[in-house]
Amino acid sequence: MESSLSRLVRLLSAGFSNQAQAFDNPPLFAHILVKFRPLPQLEPGSLLLEQTYAITPSVPYRIRVLRPERREGGLIIHNQALHEEQRFWGAVDDGERRSLIQSSDLRPLEGCTYVVQELGDGFVGEVEPGCRCLVERKGATAYLVSSFELDQAGMRTVDRGHDPTTHEQLWGAQAGAFAFERTHDYSHEIPPTWLEHFAD
Amino acid sequence: MESSLSRLVRLLSAGFSNQAQAFDNPPLFAHILVKFRPLPQLEPGSLLLEQTYAITPSVPYRIRVLRPERREGGLIIHNQALHEEQRFWGAVDDGERRSLIQSSDLRPLEGCTYVVQELGDGFVGEVEPGCRCLVERKGATAYLVSSFELDQAGMRTVDRGHDPTTHEQLWGAQAGAFAFERTHDYSHEIPPTWLEHFAD
Repeated sequence: MESSLSRLVRLLSAGFSNQAQAFDNPPLFAHILVKFRPLPQLEPGSLLLEQTYAITPSVPYRIRVLRPERREGGLIIHNQALHEEQRFWGAVDDGERRSLIQSSDLRPLEGCTYVVQELGDGFVGEVEPGCRCLVERKGATAYLVSSFELDQAGMRTVDRGHDPTTHEQLWGAQAGAFAFERTHDYSHEIPPTWLEHFAD
Repeated sequence: MESSLSRLVRLLSAGFSNQAQAFDNPPLFAHILVKFRPLPQLEPGSLLLEQTYAITPSVPYRIRVLRPERREGGLIIHNQALHEEQRFWGAVDDGERRSLIQSSDLRPLEGCTYVVQELGDGFVGEVEPGCRCLVERKGATAYLVSSFELDQAGMRTVDRGHDPTTHEQLWGAQAGAFAFERTHDYSHEIPPTWLEHFAD
């Protein structure tokens, strides 16, 4: 039977688009593309994440290397930024540049690990408690409150920024969760050695 | 001295984009284009409005013919839909098709007239009171609460839908207005005869 960790990595290894939501609700939702793609040269489970506006698919507003793993009977997802990230913009669609990403390029984002639960045939996750996942937007620091739901059909995400002192919401979900449908399947790019590793 | 009505039509006859807002706040604001362009063959003040996602500039999610005029010492803007509106999609960038729009193509949107006030060197407007400007979104009827601020620098807009019975907000901006900068000036397309008419 497939392990939970293996299933999480498989469900994540995909491309997603909220085009239907954007076009059903003009102009409330930006049209967003999200892709997660295995990086076989890195630790098992490592996935390059790029999020872009659909209008500028080669200019990600967020690029990360995520790495799901087991932790105390459950699952977490490590969240890592990239040093000089512009070097890797667009690598999610460019295998050659993707292969250049090394572990020395990664910078762990402290406090930004996702804690993941199984739910039905999918998963739900949210940033670990502690208000320590700090992000800057136009000069103001906020802590990130971020959650997702992932299943075979797609993904829903909510991101909000809160003031570290007053905990007031500074920015976030205009009109509710972003609702993504699957557009690409990259699960065949998961190396067999990872699957053996996940089965342990 | 320029009349208020003339100034309102001049400030509206323009193209607007919220690109800066969209790219400063990913992914919270869709990148939107709004254009208002004179229709000299129609009643003085008649402006074709198209609003699109920037990614699909020829597919408006809203197309209207607006017509500012004086009313009881103030200003209002008549709000009109177009019969078989697909005939005119993209006409805001196509003078030949723009010239085909006739008054018989227009359908007044009852309850959706904007009431406009001068404010500083610009204008503010909102849909008339009465909760009668009904819009449908995915099968649910809501009444539109819509407002704008317009000046030489740009335009800010807020649209919300409310339940006609409970008055609960069903959709719309929770995290703030769309903020548009001017990208095009179409005020030179205002026919001189309109300016004479506005001066009366």
